[in-house]
Amino acid sequence: MGGKQNPEQRRRELCDAAIALLAREGIKGVTHLKVDRKAGVADGTTSFYFRTSSALIRAAANRIADLDLADLTAATRSDNGDDGPSPAVGLARLVIRSGTGARLVRSKARYELVMPSSRDAGLAEAFSHNQQRFFELHRNVVVALCPSDTDPGLIDEKSYVLLTFISGLMLALARGDRTINSDEELHGIITAIVAAAPAASHREGVAAVDR
Amino acid sequence: MGGKQNPEQRRRELCDAAIALLAREGIKGVTHLKVDRKAGVADGTTSFYFRTSSALIRAAANRIADLDLADLTAATRSDNGDDGPSPAVGLARLVIRSGTGARLVRSKARYELVMPSSRDAGLAEAFSHNQQRFFELHRNVVVALCPSDTDPGLIDEKSYVLLTFISGLMLALARGDRTINSDEELHGIITAIVAAAPAASHREGVAAVDR
Repeated sequence: MGGKQNPEQRRRELCDAAIALLAREGIKGVTHLKVDRKAGVADGTTSFYFRTSSALIRAAANRIADLDLADLTAATRSDNGDDGPSPAVGLARLVIRSGTGARLVRSKARYELVMPSSRDAGLAEAFSHNQQRFFELHRNVVVALCPSDTDPGLIDEKSYVLLTFISGLMLALARGDRTINSDEELHGIITAIVAAAPAASHREGVAAVDR
Repeated sequence: MGGKQNPEQRRRELCDAAIALLAREGIKGVTHLKVDRKAGVADGTTSFYFRTSSALIRAAANRIADLDLADLTAATRSDNGDDGPSPAVGLARLVIRSGTGARLVRSKARYELVMPSSRDAGLAEAFSHNQQRFFELHRNVVVALCPSDTDPGLIDEKSYVLLTFISGLMLALARGDRTINSDEELHGIITAIVAAAPAASHREGVAAVDR
């Protein structure tokens, strides 16, 4: 690699190398020197761009978060026209793809950082913005699937249940579980989860909960 | 602590100390000396019982797996009589409790080990037995909630969806998310997920999605 790249492009390449190391070896596998070697740049380059180990890990986390958000936003667009995939189909495709190729690398790296982010405010910040946006994007999927639902509380609850299921599934895929491995099967499951009318007993249960 | 304890009891105490360190600092926080200090035993004790770092982490993983399985088995018993909690109520209570106290410590430690277990066969073994048993126990919850379901494939699918949702929720609780915080609310959600009949629309949906 020459010196022609601009700093932003170089930072992204170093983050991508750090993400690959995270996926393969966990946080302990991410050192400045290993990132230099992985990215094929001169020793010391990573230290120049990211002074501390913490800065490097946070930058990788921000890169993961940016890519995740861009992917989920594109996948769940509802303005694809009549021929485009529905938000639910887009979500199913994206999640299944998170179990293979470059997205699997990113997914493994993400889950390596989940527990550390509960101990590190800087790392938590990289993901906290996405948590709210992910909820909103899953909510779009629910609204598109259930246009007749009008109770915002019910829509929120379905959205949270869907988001939580998808999170558990992505963790399973990142670990190598392949119980669900087709877009079609996952789309059917998403549809069933979202269609689930919380029965009378449920609503009473929720109402009875003291906040 | 005296020398009166039997070796098995001592091993369990050292594992519990390792679990507390895992929860607080991740794998990198678990050293033999720190486990000695945390357990209040003479320096060198942990090294005597667990020669390598890998043996220590695996023993902690096995202890987590044993406690998890005992908890889930007890929570989802269906022979509690008419006055006892149903399997679904027992599951909801257990999951909510996993977000507080000693169970939160164990839960954080468990999720610290999930991604490392995908890189370490010995660690994976500690959890792999439980994965099958957890599926069976969640299946018991589904069968108890839907006694009229007779299609084994449908029961299996509902069980997998429930298990995956619960896994995502426990990860969220371990991270400090408190969106769902009452047994009643979670019981209502479990009931709704399991009741969701992947109706005709589901089966058709599966067939209709293009590959």
